[in-house]
Amino acid sequence: MNLGIIGLGKMGGGIARRLHRDGHTPIGFDLDPEERTQLASDGVGTAASLDELVDKLESPRIFWLMVPAGHIVDKVLADLKPHLSENSIVVDGGNSYYQDSMRRAKELQENVGAHYIDCGVSGGVWGLEGGYCLMVGGADAPVEHLRPVFETLAPAKNKGWGHMGPSGSGHFVKMIHNGIEYGLMQAYAEGFALMTAKEEFDLDTVQISNIWQHGSVIRSWLLELVENALREDGPGLNDIAPYVADSGMGRWTVQEAMDLNIPAPVLTHSLIERIQSRDDRAFYNRLLAALRNQFGGHALKTAVSGANSETGEG
Amino acid sequence: MNLGIIGLGKMGGGIARRLHRDGHTPIGFDLDPEERTQLASDGVGTAASLDELVDKLESPRIFWLMVPAGHIVDKVLADLKPHLSENSIVVDGGNSYYQDSMRRAKELQENVGAHYIDCGVSGGVWGLEGGYCLMVGGADAPVEHLRPVFETLAPAKNKGWGHMGPSGSGHFVKMIHNGIEYGLMQAYAEGFALMTAKEEFDLDTVQISNIWQHGSVIRSWLLELVENALREDGPGLNDIAPYVADSGMGRWTVQEAMDLNIPAPVLTHSLIERIQSRDDRAFYNRLLAALRNQFGGHALKTAVSGANSETGEG
Repeated sequence: MNLGIIGLGKMGGGIARRLHRDGHTPIGFDLDPEERTQLASDGVGTAASLDELVDKLESPRIFWLMVPAGHIVDKVLADLKPHLSENSIVVDGGNSYYQDSMRRAKELQENVGAHYIDCGVSGGVWGLEGGYCLMVGGADAPVEHLRPVFETLAPAKNKGWGHMGPSGSGHFVKMIHNGIEYGLMQAYAEGFALMTAKEEFDLDTVQISNIWQHGSVIRSWLLELVENALREDGPGLNDIAPYVADSGMGRWTVQEAMDLNIPAPVLTHSLIERIQSRDDRAFYNRLLAALRNQFGGHALKTAVSGANSETGEG
Repeated sequence: MNLGIIGLGKMGGGIARRLHRDGHTPIGFDLDPEERTQLASDGVGTAASLDELVDKLESPRIFWLMVPAGHIVDKVLADLKPHLSENSIVVDGGNSYYQDSMRRAKELQENVGAHYIDCGVSGGVWGLEGGYCLMVGGADAPVEHLRPVFETLAPAKNKGWGHMGPSGSGHFVKMIHNGIEYGLMQAYAEGFALMTAKEEFDLDTVQISNIWQHGSVIRSWLLELVENALREDGPGLNDIAPYVADSGMGRWTVQEAMDLNIPAPVLTHSLIERIQSRDDRAFYNRLLAALRNQFGGHALKTAVSGANSETGEG
């Protein structure tokens, strides 16, 4: 199938390559010429501008967006709009907020009669070789039209991809997927922190992360990555800063839990832990320390200079 | 290897069978004659009493206990003590508290010179066919002596089992393993609760639990069990009471986190959610409702009779 891939980062580049290998004719476009050159060196078609991309696609055109969530998606959609017609399809394969995808699908349908498909993609950099898990939302006809693309990108023709439901449902399911991911990661991280702190047993956490992958109830792909990380970075992870980013999906999951009146304490707490990892000011811990001093005269540690340096009991 | 298996429930019976199949000569004992008969019908040796079991084992004897954690282990150990000598080995394959295992190992060594091995076993009823994950604690010599047994019980000779460290370390690692298990289960459970509550998308959660197993970052064995459960019990799980038991390992993990001064918020919260699922009295929610009424005159739901029946806004 002939389609344009817009955004050739790790995910978009992998998708273009996997489609190309299976006989599709993707044309890749990225503002960064380096990404285009790399993709072209693998024999995949590229375009140096959006106009060139449009020229290289058969009508009705199919575009697959793999760009950061947010206003960039709206910007790209505005640029694409003149080149879309009835039966054109735009797929958003990024981590967009599902309600944005519902709005964009409605607008695109109303304005130019084109289809908008929200497709949650999981698999990271490993997807190029192993295949991606795809959660697809949108109308039946365009999803069915794109079936050959999904069958190529998934780990197997009939495995790891599915039509979730109407517009928005693909990104909704991907959002929950990532919310769960936060919780799973946090659970492993806490368990390994406890084993690392238990000095009297001098545990080999690399060995443990390996044996748990065989026969144990908690075996998983994330556990394989735990082993990789402990091997590559050392069991103390000493060169890795304890700063955990988040891309928004966890926040939206927590917001959704409140909107649905469904408690999600562990998913919520996993997000909070990430936010806490970046809280240099640690104001509430300062206030707690100050209050203990106020009512009980408990000793304070004093900050010497800046936010985080401490010298001991003051 | 010739050894006695004490406790022929799902785990002990599976262990005896897997050893027998691989050419070992286990002798099974259980107070329940039905368990003995079932095991014997599979061709595995059994004993009708502890004395008979002792008679059927070569000296120095090896016993593998697969009985509930707590005082039952101490009771069995007291019964076994007269039949143990130097170089006898007792393996506790149950979910004992690691500090109990450290005490028992010390006592057994001091009193009769026998070895005590704490062996955390994961794999549940699936272990008989697929092999168990084994986390072994204790002295080098007896662990090495038991190597053929571990190599048979594990999924493969050199996979899924390991010598963690000194006495107690096997059950310590198994305790953390189960603590992590609580967190993983809770994360999946919350995510599926959110998708089930999102009525506007009418999601097929059975389909989702399946496609996530292929290519997705959150694929795992527990996710396969989620699919099994949703298929067997229906996506609403309507016939399953929302009552979640716990066997103690999660509690000890939380206690350990406090002893080590290492925060484990998600493992802790996963335990709290299980406790809350069994809290019929819901006293704190009654108090919160009453307080809202006290200061703001907010309407109360009234309990008609008994603890949990409510009729609507009062």
